[in-house]
Amino acid sequence: MNAYEKLLKEYQDIVVIGSAQSVVHWDLETYMPPKGVKQRSEQLALLSRLEHRMITSDKIGKLLDEAEKDIEDMSQEQKRNLHLIRREYDEETALPEELVGDLSKQKAISVDTWKKAKAKKDWSVFEPELNKTIDLSVEKAEILMDIKGTESIYDTMIDDFEKGMTKEKIASVFSELRKGLVPLTQKCADVSSDVKTDFLKREVPIEIQKKIATDLATTIGYDTTSDEAAGRIDPTEHPFTTGYYDDVRITLNYKENNLVGMMYAALHEGGHALYERNMNPDWKYQPIGQAASFGIHESQSRFIENMLGRSPEFLDYYYPRLNELTDDLFSDIDKSRFAKAVNLVEPSKIRIEADEVTYSLHVIIRFEIEKALFGGEVEISELPQVWNDKYDEYLGVEVANDSEGVMQDTHWASGYYGYFPSYALGNVYDGMWLQKINKDMPKWQKNLTEGEVVPVVNWLTENVHHYGSLYDPADLIEEVVGEKPKAKPFLSYLDEKYASIFGF
Amino acid sequence: MNAYEKLLKEYQDIVVIGSAQSVVHWDLETYMPPKGVKQRSEQLALLSRLEHRMITSDKIGKLLDEAEKDIEDMSQEQKRNLHLIRREYDEETALPEELVGDLSKQKAISVDTWKKAKAKKDWSVFEPELNKTIDLSVEKAEILMDIKGTESIYDTMIDDFEKGMTKEKIASVFSELRKGLVPLTQKCADVSSDVKTDFLKREVPIEIQKKIATDLATTIGYDTTSDEAAGRIDPTEHPFTTGYYDDVRITLNYKENNLVGMMYAALHEGGHALYERNMNPDWKYQPIGQAASFGIHESQSRFIENMLGRSPEFLDYYYPRLNELTDDLFSDIDKSRFAKAVNLVEPSKIRIEADEVTYSLHVIIRFEIEKALFGGEVEISELPQVWNDKYDEYLGVEVANDSEGVMQDTHWASGYYGYFPSYALGNVYDGMWLQKINKDMPKWQKNLTEGEVVPVVNWLTENVHHYGSLYDPADLIEEVVGEKPKAKPFLSYLDEKYASIFGF
Repeated sequence: MNAYEKLLKEYQDIVVIGSAQSVVHWDLETYMPPKGVKQRSEQLALLSRLEHRMITSDKIGKLLDEAEKDIEDMSQEQKRNLHLIRREYDEETALPEELVGDLSKQKAISVDTWKKAKAKKDWSVFEPELNKTIDLSVEKAEILMDIKGTESIYDTMIDDFEKGMTKEKIASVFSELRKGLVPLTQKCADVSSDVKTDFLKREVPIEIQKKIATDLATTIGYDTTSDEAAGRIDPTEHPFTTGYYDDVRITLNYKENNLVGMMYAALHEGGHALYERNMNPDWKYQPIGQAASFGIHESQSRFIENMLGRSPEFLDYYYPRLNELTDDLFSDIDKSRFAKAVNLVEPSKIRIEADEVTYSLHVIIRFEIEKALFGGEVEISELPQVWNDKYDEYLGVEVANDSEGVMQDTHWASGYYGYFPSYALGNVYDGMWLQKINKDMPKWQKNLTEGEVVPVVNWLTENVHHYGSLYDPADLIEEVVGEKPKAKPFLSYLDEKYASIFGF
Repeated sequence: MNAYEKLLKEYQDIVVIGSAQSVVHWDLETYMPPKGVKQRSEQLALLSRLEHRMITSDKIGKLLDEAEKDIEDMSQEQKRNLHLIRREYDEETALPEELVGDLSKQKAISVDTWKKAKAKKDWSVFEPELNKTIDLSVEKAEILMDIKGTESIYDTMIDDFEKGMTKEKIASVFSELRKGLVPLTQKCADVSSDVKTDFLKREVPIEIQKKIATDLATTIGYDTTSDEAAGRIDPTEHPFTTGYYDDVRITLNYKENNLVGMMYAALHEGGHALYERNMNPDWKYQPIGQAASFGIHESQSRFIENMLGRSPEFLDYYYPRLNELTDDLFSDIDKSRFAKAVNLVEPSKIRIEADEVTYSLHVIIRFEIEKALFGGEVEISELPQVWNDKYDEYLGVEVANDSEGVMQDTHWASGYYGYFPSYALGNVYDGMWLQKINKDMPKWQKNLTEGEVVPVVNWLTENVHHYGSLYDPADLIEEVVGEKPKAKPFLSYLDEKYASIFGF
């Protein structure tokens, strides 16, 4: 074995312990008995410590140095693997263990405080702990800025989630995006008052909802039932996807009066699962055998949820099936009414409940606030006011209290700064994929009406999933689509789709 | 922190990684998608390697040496903790990593071959792989014999499961046990032909069976439902218990026509779970905060299953409840007929299906064979014949093929030699506990008729569970009961119980 091979062998342990953590964490969120929470957090903390110890070990450092001597003769895959391990090694070794420990503890405290403050609708309870979390995160970013060679604190934070992206690049894409979304939101809102959606709340027994979730998973090619299945679906509070290659799971929240919410969550998480599941099997346990970025991940979930799942063509196919599975629940509602209802655009205060059009505006607000905050233009104490002003300006909604405003998301409490942009970048990336799919398979959408879902999933597998982390996200898009990410394709898609559904 | 405190802090990681392994293994046996098996075995192998690396680390070795200097001034608990870590450290460090790896691989091969040979009913397929597994196990035992100071290979193997026990001590107890069991089996068999049991196979929907399992768990004080629950019940192929302190789980196998089998499995696993669950909370993450031995564990499960659960007194209380939960499934069967049916004694060929009386005879057969095998009196090739002869002699049953004979259990394929005795020692230990319980709470059994189950569980908690590993198993019994383990109390219990139920 040469140094490169030895290095990959060492790296396998790091990946395997990560995949074990996934299982332990999945259990925490699904079936763990209530009493187990403290014990479980000790397990997760230990596994993280061990993982950190592994990646920063002298052994990895020495093998890296040795392997890099032969880099000239290596294939693209090998070079990229070396690059990714080097990046991880340098970043992890640069962080003092004390800071990592302090930040981890502070995050736990601030999440806990955030929960209490949110319940009390009292920002002043949360502010001091958020302050500490931000201070420690900035301290961390300052160290990583040197290593990453990034130009600002906020760029450094973004780089953790969307490698190679900067606040300037994002600002440019988002400004274009915002310009298109604000008028479209207005246009859609004008017609939405006529659309009745109360029938979406009709009650469906959980057992039937579970069957529909499984059926939708099967429809998109995410196998959770066969003897060769590598997936499964379980109930939880907040839906998520977790796992690795041959054991990738989604979770859903079932409520009797929220069938449609559950369905689109199933398609969303199913999209995430397909990505993890369909990674290049030759790259298992290698750094390149993992998702390119959070934004690319989100592009996969939102493509399946929205571009595929909310398209009138897919509904043409699936709506009769849904009626069959629910014993004619919607037999009095015609297909186009249903399509309007599940595509309704209504400016709202809560991001996670937002429709396809306004969703990105929620994210842009957070991005602009983060950019101003870490650029020193806004103080932490001013966040609630800045928040409310932007919600008024971009979405025309009035925020009644900070729990439905600045404290609605857990991200800032959890120390995730620079994470939000990825959510909207996922939409932008989707526009890019769509542009290429429309060229490669002009009839893909029409074919959905016949239930031909698999061809487009195969396209995603060949053009996105299989590439893993071979490229940074923007480079992946340029490689596959031939252009850099821009907002226009996504905006054109929305304009066309909504004009066609609502007839404006 | 002094050396002892530092040592315990290091040891905590070893316990925590073990508890994480439990979760990962539980998932493997319950909900893991079929495709995940290879990936999962890599996770489990890595976690074992890490655990081994931790316990054999120089850090532990040095802290041990340092802490032992102050041993004179330590409390009983502290001394015992030091002793247990020292024992584990010395044993684990003595084994060459290559041998550990080879044995682990060979076990996987021989289990796989055992499955195939069992399906084909062909001993000759299994024999060569069993040979290799035994050779490697003997090699391991030879190394450990020096460390443990045991006197024979077989004693060394027994010591892995039942610390401080030897083949001589076990032989003496078992010979007494056998002398009592053989005639009692005969007596019971004589009356059993009159007892009809076909009603036990009546079909009950799985959903109702799950409710009954939960109800039984609640009845014995194993909480799987409240907001403070530390337990849960899930379906699996072969029932087992796993977990640690605040997250202890049982699994059950549900078949529509096997309600009663499921019920006694629930009580059996529930007994195991109570032990893990009710360990002294002050000793969490310490070596003393774990089960004393496999035999003591088995005494807890079999006590709840048999002495409590199959007693006519418990059935007096629970039988009406069972009828209520099953919508009067057994309304035509009177209580005493039911009690006879669930206590029926019938010599059989399969250990895991054996009744309370003959069960120990199955185990004694395996013990005698292991003793002869590792004593050089029997060759591996002779095992099938020796097996069949003993089944004829002790149980009067004729073995038709090696799959229902010598190849019925997985233990030998899995490299577990010296494990079987613990199963029957559990019964013997139960006789000892009973002797003391009858003194401490003379009316405990009578009170079961009123549903007063908790007092006897509390006795077990205070006198067994709470002691953890403070003593070796035989010492624990002597400490609590005031006598060394012997077969007589268990035999007397059986004689009385069966005479009373069957009227001989």
